[in-house]
Parts: sequence; C-alpha cells; structure tokens
Amino acid sequence: MAAYAEMSREELTTLRNSLLEEYESFKAQGLKLDMSRGKPGADQLDISNDLLTMVTSIEESKINGTDTRNYGGLDGLPEMKKIFADMLGVDTNEVIVGGNSSLNMMYDTVARAMLFGIMGSTPWSKLEKVKFLCPVPGYDRHFTICQTFGIEMIPVEMNADGPDMDVVEKLVSEDSAIKGIWCVPKYSNPGGITYSDDVVCRFANLKPAAEDFRIFWDNAYVVHDLYDVSDPLLNILDECRKAGNEDMCYIFASTSKVTFPGAGVAVMAGSASNMEATRKLMTFQTIGPDKVNQLRHIRFLKDLDGVRAHMKKHAAIIRPKFEIVLNTLEKELAGIGIAEWHKPNGGYFVSLDVYPGCAKKVHALLKDAGVVMTGAGATFPYGNDPKDRNLRIAPTFPTVSELEIAVKMLCLCVKLTAVEKILEK
Amino acid sequence: MAAYAEMSREELTTLRNSLLEEYESFKAQGLKLDMSRGKPGADQLDISNDLLTMVTSIEESKINGTDTRNYGGLDGLPEMKKIFADMLGVDTNEVIVGGNSSLNMMYDTVARAMLFGIMGSTPWSKLEKVKFLCPVPGYDRHFTICQTFGIEMIPVEMNADGPDMDVVEKLVSEDSAIKGIWCVPKYSNPGGITYSDDVVCRFANLKPAAEDFRIFWDNAYVVHDLYDVSDPLLNILDECRKAGNEDMCYIFASTSKVTFPGAGVAVMAGSASNMEATRKLMTFQTIGPDKVNQLRHIRFLKDLDGVRAHMKKHAAIIRPKFEIVLNTLEKELAGIGIAEWHKPNGGYFVSLDVYPGCAKKVHALLKDAGVVMTGAGATFPYGNDPKDRNLRIAPTFPTVSELEIAVKMLCLCVKLTAVEKILEK
Repeated sequence: MAAYAEMSREELTTLRNSLLEEYESFKAQGLKLDMSRGKPGADQLDISNDLLTMVTSIEESKINGTDTRNYGGLDGLPEMKKIFADMLGVDTNEVIVGGNSSLNMMYDTVARAMLFGIMGSTPWSKLEKVKFLCPVPGYDRHFTICQTFGIEMIPVEMNADGPDMDVVEKLVSEDSAIKGIWCVPKYSNPGGITYSDDVVCRFANLKPAAEDFRIFWDNAYVVHDLYDVSDPLLNILDECRKAGNEDMCYIFASTSKVTFPGAGVAVMAGSASNMEATRKLMTFQTIGPDKVNQLRHIRFLKDLDGVRAHMKKHAAIIRPKFEIVLNTLEKELAGIGIAEWHKPNGGYFVSLDVYPGCAKKVHALLKDAGVVMTGAGATFPYGNDPKDRNLRIAPTFPTVSELEIAVKMLCLCVKLTAVEKILEK
Repeated sequence: MAAYAEMSREELTTLRNSLLEEYESFKAQGLKLDMSRGKPGADQLDISNDLLTMVTSIEESKINGTDTRNYGGLDGLPEMKKIFADMLGVDTNEVIVGGNSSLNMMYDTVARAMLFGIMGSTPWSKLEKVKFLCPVPGYDRHFTICQTFGIEMIPVEMNADGPDMDVVEKLVSEDSAIKGIWCVPKYSNPGGITYSDDVVCRFANLKPAAEDFRIFWDNAYVVHDLYDVSDPLLNILDECRKAGNEDMCYIFASTSKVTFPGAGVAVMAGSASNMEATRKLMTFQTIGPDKVNQLRHIRFLKDLDGVRAHMKKHAAIIRPKFEIVLNTLEKELAGIGIAEWHKPNGGYFVSLDVYPGCAKKVHALLKDAGVVMTGAGATFPYGNDPKDRNLRIAPTFPTVSELEIAVKMLCLCVKLTAVEKILEK
C-alpha cells in the first residue's frame, strides 16, 4: 500500500469515500465491544478457580500456628511475603502485603507522604508545590492519584528502553519540589516496553535535590510474559542499594492479573527502613488485610515456580489476542505512514500512535460505532496528549471474535481520520 | 464484706498480707492468659466456617450478572449493601461497602478530611488546629487515629446513658476547631452502655460552630446482643434528617465480629450527599474491595434475619464468659467500695473502674503474673486516665476455664492495690 503522504488529493478523496462507506456499514451493525480496560477475560479467571477451594475447613484455615480467620497480621502472612519477595527479588522483611489492590497501596503511600512526610521530611501537604515526573504515555490511574492530591505532573518522553533519562536526571537533580516519578518498568502501560539495564542503573544512581524523592516502581507486570522468554529487568532495589540509594524506591505489584482482579493480593516492597516507617503508620490504619485470602493464594500459587507455571496458562489464552491486534495493525496500517506501535513481549496493552491530531476523533468514531476504547488522552497527565496521537488497546477482555472486529474497526477509523486530516491541509 | 474505707489500719495490713500471699502463689503458677483485645474465640470463628464454602465454582462466583472475580464495583455489591442498609436502618444508596476493616474506613475518612476537607470545606491539614471530642473511657484505636493526624483530643465524661451532652453541646457550638466526636453508641467500648433516645436526639440536634463537623458513629456492636432483648438505639441518620442535619454523621460497622475478624466485610453509611462525596474521592484510591468475599457473606448471612439468627449463636458462646466476669466481680468486689462496673447487654467488654490511682499498678501486677489486659490508660486520649482508674476486660478470647482464673486474679490485684493505696494515706 502507498504511504498516504505520497497520494494525490484525488486518490485521497476516493479513499476517504470508500473508508467512510465501510465505516457506515460497520456502524449499522450496532456492535457493542469493549477494549477499554486491562481486564482479564472470563477464561482467564477460570484457570484460578481452584483458589476458591483452597481454604474450606477449620484445619485448612490455619497455617504454621496462625488462625487466618482471626485478627492480626498487619503486613501479611510470612508465607505470602515469601512468594512476593521471591517474585520481586527482595527479602521478606522488605515486603508489606496489602489488601486486594496495589493501586490502593500506591494511593496510601502518596497520602502518607502528603500527611506525614517520608522518614521525617516535611509533609508534602505543607509544601508550596509538589511535583511528580510522569513518563508518557503512562497509566491513567497513576496520574489521577497526583491530580487528586494537587501534585503537579511533568510529562517525560518515553524512549524505546524507558523514560528519557537525560531529562529525568536533570529535573530530579535541579528541582527539590520533584518528589516522585511513576514507572511501570516491565511491559510498560501502555507502551509494552521494558526498561534497559542502563535506564534502571541511571534510576538507581539519581542524585535528587529532594531528600524524600521516591521512585514509584509499579512492577504490575513482573511475571506477565506473553512468550517463553521474558524481557530482562534489573532489580531496582539491588541497584539502588549499590548506589547508596536504597531508600529511594517503592515497589508495587499484585496478583490482580495472576489470580482474580477483584479478589487478589497486593504488595509493596522497598528497603527495610522504608517498610518499617510504613508499617509504623499502618498500625493506626488497620488491624491487617484479609489473611484467609492470602492463605488461599499461598496454597494455590505455592511458590514462584507455581506463579510462573500459572502465568504460562494466562499467556496461552491472551497471546492469540495480542497477535490478532498486532497482525491486524500490521496488515492494515503498516507502510502507509500514519501510525506507529510496538510489539510487546508481555503486559496488558498495545500502544498505538495514530496520525497527529486524530486520536480523539478515532475514539469518538469508534464509540459511535459501539467500540469502547480507553479515552484518548488518558495516557497523559491531565488527559492532555499534546499531539493527540496516543490510543491504548486492551486486548484481553473481548473474545477473539469480538477483538477481530474491534481492531479492524479501529484500523478503519485510524485510516479514515488520517485521510481527512491530510485533506484538511 | 466490709467496705475497705471502714477498716482499721490493722485489719487492712492483715488483709494486705494475706492478699499478697495469695498473689505470690498465683504468680508462681506461671500462667499465660490474654484478656487484652476484643478478639472472638476459636469456637466463635467455627460457627462461620460455612462462609468458606459459599463460593467454590464459576457459577457460584456470579450474582445477578456480576462476575465477582473480576474488576469493578467501587462501593460494593448491591446485595451486600442491602444487608448492611437493613442492619443500619438506612437506604442502600446511603451505604459504601469496604474491605475487611471498618477501622480502615474510619482512618480513611479522617485522612480524606485532612487532605481534601469535607464537601468543599478547608482541608483540615491546612487549619491551625483541629480538635475531636472523645467520650471517655473510649476505644483506643479511635484515639490513635486522632493522635496520628495531630488532632487534639478533648475528653468528655460518659454518663450512664451516653456522653455528657451538656458539655458536648457547649463545646461543639462554641469552638469551630472541633470537627468531630467519636461514638460507640451501642454497647459502648468499653463501658457497654447504649445511648438513650435523649442523647441520640441531642446529638442529631447539635448546632456545631464548624460547618464540617461530623459525628463518627462507630456502630461496631449494632447486632451484638448478649441476650434476647436488645438495647434500643435510635437511628442517628433519621434523627439528623429530622433535625435538618442529615450530613452531620458518618456511620461505621463491619462483620468482623459477625463472621471472621480477619476476613469480614466493613461498611460506612451516611446521607446520600456524604456517600457521593466519599465515592468521588474513592475512585482515585481503588478499583473496589474484594467482591468474592462479599458474595460469600451475601450467601452465608442472607439477610438481616440471617444476621440476627447468627448473632444468637455468638451470644450463646460468649454470654457464659461475660457471666463469669460479672459474677466474679460481684462475688469478689461488691460492697467493699473499691471498684465499679456496669453489666452490659451486648458488645465485647466489661469496663472496670478500680480504686483511684491503682489501674496501672493492677495492670502491672497482672502482667507479672502472666495475665495480659489492655494497657491501663488505653481507654483515654493520649493514654492518660487522669484518675488512673479504668481497666478494660475483654472476656471473649480466653476459654471459660482460663477466664475464671484470670478474672479471679484481676479481682485479687484490684483488692491488693486498693489496700496498699489506702494504707499509704
């Protein structure tokens, strides 16, 4: 297919009319498809159903002398800590097990910093200005946490191997109002890239102007490979420790996309001092998270090998969905110079950059035709994608046949809006 | 038995020596008993074990079209809301279902007020001074929430029918820095009394100087009767509404002492506007609490009648324990003028006022002899019981035979310290 930029006005007009006709006939079908959130499909939930029968009796509700049904256990059962510690490559005393939501743990971590500061620093709420760096495109729920707390967000461009570290290093070392940066270091949301060793080392060696600067390392997809070979990712806590910066990172993860999104177990990790300071404040907040559900997970997942084996089952289900997306993008959009994307080796998303100025329009056209995608702009702070280019595709929730239609439809709208944009010029 | 105050020095000295001897022989037994926390006993947990098998398959994990295993449901399943709404006498849209901890919901509510204010008011963290009224004796974890946030606590005396409302009304109407009051209105912690209609009406008709004043109505023991007849308690939200103050109260409760303390379901309730404002902020904090566990509770408890029937089983188990405590107190301490207590009709505690200046000493003596009680002073803000009198007895966790020894031991120490105190004069 010819690049659109090289086509004549006549060719483009003919193409536009034919695409429009195709769109209208799609629209007339009255579809109802949802590619909006990184939500596992029902078939993925089913592979964890044994979780539901892991604790069914008095005997089964106890582990190493602890009755999980009763009060106690502020930061999790030791056996659950062990699984997470192995998963994240940290010690068990560097782990705090939470409830069912790592988002909640991230929110609470920022809220604690706002209210109490970090390890003796001034509470962020008492400061004139607090800023976070936000690699873009990124995860909308990270951004809304900042927005809620009135934290100013500074976008930083993502490269193929992670955030632009020249910019990160410069800003973090110069501006003491910069207190944090959001990272999804493995199979990033939405780009699907994994940070290179160089990027992780540069993170670990940051020289922040703020003593209470923290890297919010949301390792949401730490075991979420699509293929047998996993993207390698350096251990941030180890690297920080080597650099004499061991308190500089908070790590987050969960089993939301390992077992059940609505009833999994979340975790945060970091240096022993960070965890100790966090635990101290948590004692005023709760008696402790649901231990029965932790025990279900301990029995079901067993250990890191168990987690890895289980994740292969997920991969087998969702890999074909990713391939539908990628093959369709390739077939429909390659070589015409109007869109770009990356082939991820894991995670939950494909990030699509459409023709500049067209993302909102693509989203609206799809919505009119019954296909819901994550809002255009959602992957940027304040919903502001300056080039109006980025769209996040979440392939896991629709069925294979729904997905085939939805992505074809997406490609059609990407082409249609691009042609119209070029014709406007 | 004669009142200690009427005994001669010689009689008291003889008594002291005999009590001391008895204490030493108790101590020599090397006991290990815990009456410190309001923790259900293992036999109480067992009556909820069917909860563990309420959701064991794909079919069972769905309710009215919702797959509880997946994401979604910020404020709870409608069916769980219904059970709580009926329990608290409110509408389902006046309810937000949380995770496993009502303490966490209370903490989060105060944290939200600190960070964002309430319905447009100035965030409390931006104010010079924030104060809470704390009826005493009260629940230590309420007080530690205040202390954590730097909220100044003002103790208010408890009468037989609730807090001293003359003081509450005066302070709340005069001082706009007073933003809240902690209440356990039914079977109060630790006193075991229930607020009278008059007290509840006076609460509902408060004219606070602060527009964002809130009553934190911790209805922890709403269905926790020890006998067939329940202490009546007026519905605070109804009364507030009648008084034109419908936004003035937040209500909290949970199933922690209905099903499993470590894996129950918590709730907050209040006017539709309060709940709407809360939900709006919660969307930035979490995708939603564990719905599978809610579904277990929906299936297990069924409805309010189911809850009540279940609570009768608890009462049958713990009533004898309360009776051991009360009978022993009566037998050992009645008529000698050194201690006071109230016989509760429900809840989890017996509050014991010992001879002034002796509570800490009693606690220490018991600890030395292997009997752990809640720290003396814990029932007062800042751990400061000005008369050093109050001790909280939590009868539910020990077995009946352990409890018999522990309470006898307690009475012995109460007598011993009183005699010594009187002899010091």
